[in-house]
Formats: sequence, C-alpha cells, structure tokens
Amino acid sequence: MSIHSFYPPQRTLLGPGPSDINPRVLLAMARPTIGHLDPLFSQMMEEVKQLLQQTFKTKNALTLPISGPGSVGMECCFVNLIESGDKVIVCQNGVFGGRMKENVLRCGGTLVTIEDTWGTAIDVNKVEAALKQNPDTKIVAFVHAETSTGVQSDAQAIATLAQKQGAMTIVDAVTSLAGTAIEVDQWGLDAVYSGSQKCLSCVPGLSPVTFSERAQQTIKTRKTTIQSWFLDMNLIMGYWGAQTKRAYHHTAPINSLYALHEALVILQEEGLENSWQRHQKNHLALRAGLEKLNLQLIVKESDRLPQLNAISIPADIDEAIVRKRLLDEFQLEIGAGLGPLAGKIWRIGLMGHASNQRNVLYCLNSLEAILTNMGVILEAGQAAQAAMQFYVNK
Amino acid sequence: MSIHSFYPPQRTLLGPGPSDINPRVLLAMARPTIGHLDPLFSQMMEEVKQLLQQTFKTKNALTLPISGPGSVGMECCFVNLIESGDKVIVCQNGVFGGRMKENVLRCGGTLVTIEDTWGTAIDVNKVEAALKQNPDTKIVAFVHAETSTGVQSDAQAIATLAQKQGAMTIVDAVTSLAGTAIEVDQWGLDAVYSGSQKCLSCVPGLSPVTFSERAQQTIKTRKTTIQSWFLDMNLIMGYWGAQTKRAYHHTAPINSLYALHEALVILQEEGLENSWQRHQKNHLALRAGLEKLNLQLIVKESDRLPQLNAISIPADIDEAIVRKRLLDEFQLEIGAGLGPLAGKIWRIGLMGHASNQRNVLYCLNSLEAILTNMGVILEAGQAAQAAMQFYVNK
Repeated sequence: MSIHSFYPPQRTLLGPGPSDINPRVLLAMARPTIGHLDPLFSQMMEEVKQLLQQTFKTKNALTLPISGPGSVGMECCFVNLIESGDKVIVCQNGVFGGRMKENVLRCGGTLVTIEDTWGTAIDVNKVEAALKQNPDTKIVAFVHAETSTGVQSDAQAIATLAQKQGAMTIVDAVTSLAGTAIEVDQWGLDAVYSGSQKCLSCVPGLSPVTFSERAQQTIKTRKTTIQSWFLDMNLIMGYWGAQTKRAYHHTAPINSLYALHEALVILQEEGLENSWQRHQKNHLALRAGLEKLNLQLIVKESDRLPQLNAISIPADIDEAIVRKRLLDEFQLEIGAGLGPLAGKIWRIGLMGHASNQRNVLYCLNSLEAILTNMGVILEAGQAAQAAMQFYVNK
Repeated sequence: MSIHSFYPPQRTLLGPGPSDINPRVLLAMARPTIGHLDPLFSQMMEEVKQLLQQTFKTKNALTLPISGPGSVGMECCFVNLIESGDKVIVCQNGVFGGRMKENVLRCGGTLVTIEDTWGTAIDVNKVEAALKQNPDTKIVAFVHAETSTGVQSDAQAIATLAQKQGAMTIVDAVTSLAGTAIEVDQWGLDAVYSGSQKCLSCVPGLSPVTFSERAQQTIKTRKTTIQSWFLDMNLIMGYWGAQTKRAYHHTAPINSLYALHEALVILQEEGLENSWQRHQKNHLALRAGLEKLNLQLIVKESDRLPQLNAISIPADIDEAIVRKRLLDEFQLEIGAGLGPLAGKIWRIGLMGHASNQRNVLYCLNSLEAILTNMGVILEAGQAAQAAMQFYVNK
C-alpha cells in the first residue's frame, strides 16, 4: 500500500497551541535551506538573538532558541542549573508545575513543593513561607502563565522574594511571551524558557531561553557535568555564543529558525507592547460574547491570561462532542481540560496571529450555533454583537 | 535599529549536511499548521511511522521521529538503555564515536573504548576481543557511517558479535539511512537513530529512531528513572504509540513532520534500493572526475560511503580559501575536516536529493575552475567528461 502526500485542512487554531501562523512565517520556512555554518546563517542567528532579547526585555547575552519544543527548554533550564542535592522549590498550580517537579527529581535535586488549586494563581505568601523554612533553597521554579488553566501568577513578586534570599528563579513563559507582559531584567528572572508556537505564532519545535549573568556563572562553575550532552549550555555557547568561528555542536534546525526570525520581525513591526494590548482587547471582546452565551471563565479577573481563556462547561453536555462538532463543521480547534480539569473546562486560546477580530467572532458564532443546535442556548444572536462593541470606535 | 526579513541565497549544499532539499519538501512544510492532537495529524503520524519502518527495514513497533536533531536521537538511545554502572563498549573512529562516549559517561555508564584511526573502518577483531574481555557488556555502540570521515563500518558483523554475547547495539545511522544499505531487522540492530537532513533530504531538526523488541523491554523494565523527561520513551510511547487517545507529551513540531512525511513519500516513490544505487552511481562519477583533478579519496575503496566523500587536500594550498571561493563564486558549499582531519580533508556530500548528475558536474567544474585559477591544476577540462561516462548509455 503506497502512502501519498499529506494535505492538511485549513483549521482555525484556538486551542492552547499551536496557534494560527502568519502566512509570512510559513513562507519564510519554505525558503532554501543553507548550511548551519554558512556566514549568512550566522548573521541571521545574531538577529534572532537580538530579537529575542527585545521580546524577553533583557540584555542577557545568553539568549537563544533551543532546538526543541518548549518542554526541552524547560529541561534545559533544570539540567543546567541543578546539581545533585540542590534544593528547589517548585510552585505547582497546573500541569506544567508538575512537569517541573519531574525535572527536579530527574536532576537529583531536593524537591520542596508548594501547591495551589488549579485555576488559581500561585499564592505568594506560601512562597515566602517556604523560603523561610528552607533558607538553603537554590532555585524557585514556577510557571508564569499556566497553559493548563489560563492563570497568570505574579512573577515579579515571586522573583523578588527569591532574590531577597539569594535564590535563583526558573520561569516558564511558554504561554506568556509576547501575549502578556514579562520583563526579564526588570523583574530579575534568572532562567526563562518559552515556546515558539503560542503567542509568537511560529511553528512548534523551538524553545527560546534566556539566562541571567548569575545563572550563566552558575552553569560555568558547576562541580558536576551536566547530565545532558545536547542541552549542555557550556557547549551550546560555543555555537550560538560566538559571532565568528562558531564551533559545531549540532545541526541547527535551519528552516524552523527562518520561521522564528520572521515571526520575531513581525512582532517587532507591531511592537511588543501593542501585541500585549491586542491580546487584552480581543480577550475582553471574547469574554463579552461568552457572557451572552452564559459561559463563565473559571479564573478570577485579576489572574486571567488574555491569551488563554478557561471556560466552565455547561451542565449536562458532552464537552467532547462540542469540540468535535466545532472541528468537523467549522474547522475550528479549541482545547480540552487536562488533569483534574479534564471534562470540566474548555480552553480557548487567542494567541499571537490568532488573536484577532475575525477569530473572536468566528469562535463566538460557531459556539453559539452548536450550543443552540444542541438546545443548551435558547436565544441565539447576541454573542457576536456583544464582542463587536469592543471594536467599533466610540 | 530594525531587523528585516531574511532571504537566504540559493546554495548548492554538498557538505556533510544539511543537503539540498527537494522543493516538494519545502512546500509541504509551508502547509497550514494543524493541532498536534488533531485526528488528521494522528493519521499522518501513523503514516510517518510506517514509512520509517520501511526505510529502516524493520517491523519494530517503536519506530518514530524524535522532536530534535540527530544528536538528540543519539542521546535518546543512550539515556533510555543505559543505567548507572552498565558497561558499554564504544567503538570510536571519528567525531561521533567521541560523542557516544560523552553520552555513556553522562548516563553513569562504565565505558570501554575501542579506537581506530580516523578514516578507517571499525576493526571487527577489536570488537570481538573487547567483548571477550568484558563478558558483562550490556551495549556495543558504534557509528555505521562516520560523517566526519566518510567511512562505513560493518554494522552486521559487529551486531552479530554483540548478539552472540547477549549484548545490545546502539547504532548511529545519521548519514547512512537512505544513502547506503542498512537492514535493522536482518542485521539484528537494537537501537538505531538517524537525522532528517542527510540522505532523507528533509529539513534538519528531526531524528528518526527505532528500537527492537528487546530494547523496548529493557526500557520498560529499567530499575531507575530515565534521567531525561523529554526523551523518556515510556512517556513518548503514550503519544506516538497509541493510534487513538494519544496522551499529550509535548507539542510535536507539526510542520517539520509534514516535511519528513513528504521526504519519505518521495523516497517510497523512488524505492529505497534505487536510492542506494543512485547514491553509488553518483559517487563513482564524482570519483572519476576527482581523479582527473588529482584529488584522492582518503578512505579505502571497500569502506567508502557513497554519500560522503573525504578528499585529501593538495599540498601547499589554503583549503579554507577554496571553500570560501566555492561559496562566494559558485554558491556551492562543501565541508571542512573535523578534529585530527581539520585542514587535511574536504568532505563532499552527495546526499539524498543533492545526489544527482547536475550537482556532480557542477561540483567538479567549480572545483576545477578554482584550482586551475589558483595554479594547482594546469590542464583543465577533463573532470566533467570523466564523470559523464557514468551517465551515458553504453
């Protein structure tokens, strides 16, 4: 049996990522491959580093994309900074905090866990108490924007507490970067990783990371060898760090880096702060429409991520059928809940290129049509107009 | 200072990889992104697995692309199969055997090294002797096709020796897969990894791997946790292994997988054995031309890789200038030597889509023009016609 070329449909991606990708990014990726040691490629790498520094709001020299998805960026931060026996406080309020714990254990670290209910922000008071109880803490690790729940936590407050005690921070910014404010230098974050496929609207498969001067020194002066050859920043610096005479480490994913470069150029054209504001505005418009559908956000207003809306599922409906119908009848993808929130929430992402007026309206109209058809909503026709009020000039 | 879109030049990639990519693959990659849990994406993943099984010549159920470059595929094999204290024989005859040693040490394995001169094949007698001296060997690891030297070793003979003693094999097939014969099941190889950007002519960034039933059992029954969360095959199987109800592990690099799918479809259209023969024919044509340029291959005939030709650099010339001129004046990339062969060899790859008549002639004519211009060759005009003899019907 022979297998033929694969032609994917044109979906609208309003799940937790990947998000819709700007056609400019897709076309950039299809440009001719050049060598990973080509001088022109080296120049492009320098530009990617600069653009990432702007996006992370940092001057950190060690700012670059890791050649793997966001979970590799996470692992990169942990394996480089943790040595066997190091004490690490992990704040968990969703799936990705749990993954951080896995990473600490696999690095031989001593784990201290702070737990908060899924759907709420990290309780800063608990972090303070845990630090007081564990004065030998080397690292505080937490998720800035929990993709599994749509919650953002106060990264600046947590970092300030850690600094006061001389501890470093590892911060998951996979869903926050470019969608909501994150200020690496001003907040004093030490190791931050993100993903290419959320608010950057690049293809999945790359993980931008940035390390503070202190984190870099820690990596350089480790007593033990880093357990991963591939993620050993001391080796990666030889390739990404030098502007000339780059030392071969691994073959960079050339075409994916073209895509990231283009996505970052597009972000620069828009302006980072404008991107944050766009995400906020479209979030408010979506929320106004959802209210007309009697759909409630599970996260309290002050902790909501504009780019990821977690919604309570109305009683007595099969949530998987709604998602399947949205995909089949409208080519529209939204996300399911994970872990304890499985079956209880939908996750509607408005990330990067996908955060736009057309998608807000398409999502509201499609949901309204399905829910009306299923008898969940009796009076249709209100949601889109509620959202439109955010777009007309007043 | 604002940064603009990056438009790479159209190079001809005849280095050690990445190789030239079929435009069909580049265009496949630019198709619309869909979700990594989309049912249509799941179908495509199943096809990629099937196509990889055909390419590896295996029925191994655990055959899939890892979401990272070839060095990640390497690390994946080592971290999954080695536990602290396990004895591993590594055969080194080039750069990548050295990297294997690094991996063994970082996994806490007990390392036994067999060394052979760079540019020669692994001495099977040494493997036999090492196995005899180390009856508790768990794994024999070696590079099938050394990208740093253009040498292929006898994978079947080494695997047979290992099996006789109950040891498993980890095999680097980054440069061999699709360019020269490799038969995973027939030769009884246990863990084999490759890269997307050599003879598969896909974009760099993915690493096809395959694990035998025995290797799979070893992974499932380990006593200790795998040190890498991202590369833990027990977790990855939950996403790639199941045809329905895939468990989220990490966001797959969707568009790069479109590219791999298309590259594998193209390979299926040509036929695997036909691809091997094409590589061999173009290698012979190149060699005939190189002889007219008085350029010698450093590897003895029986051990030569058709897809990677290592050439002695003529005395008294600056090899870097030749490569720079080929790149600047002809947009043609060839590779330098690495390690002890730096400055001593060029590496000319004829890999995948790049292994074709036009490239053989372009390479020979360009090299001839530069070397004549530099006064190294006095009589020009012979090389291309020598190569052409392999293409005309006799």
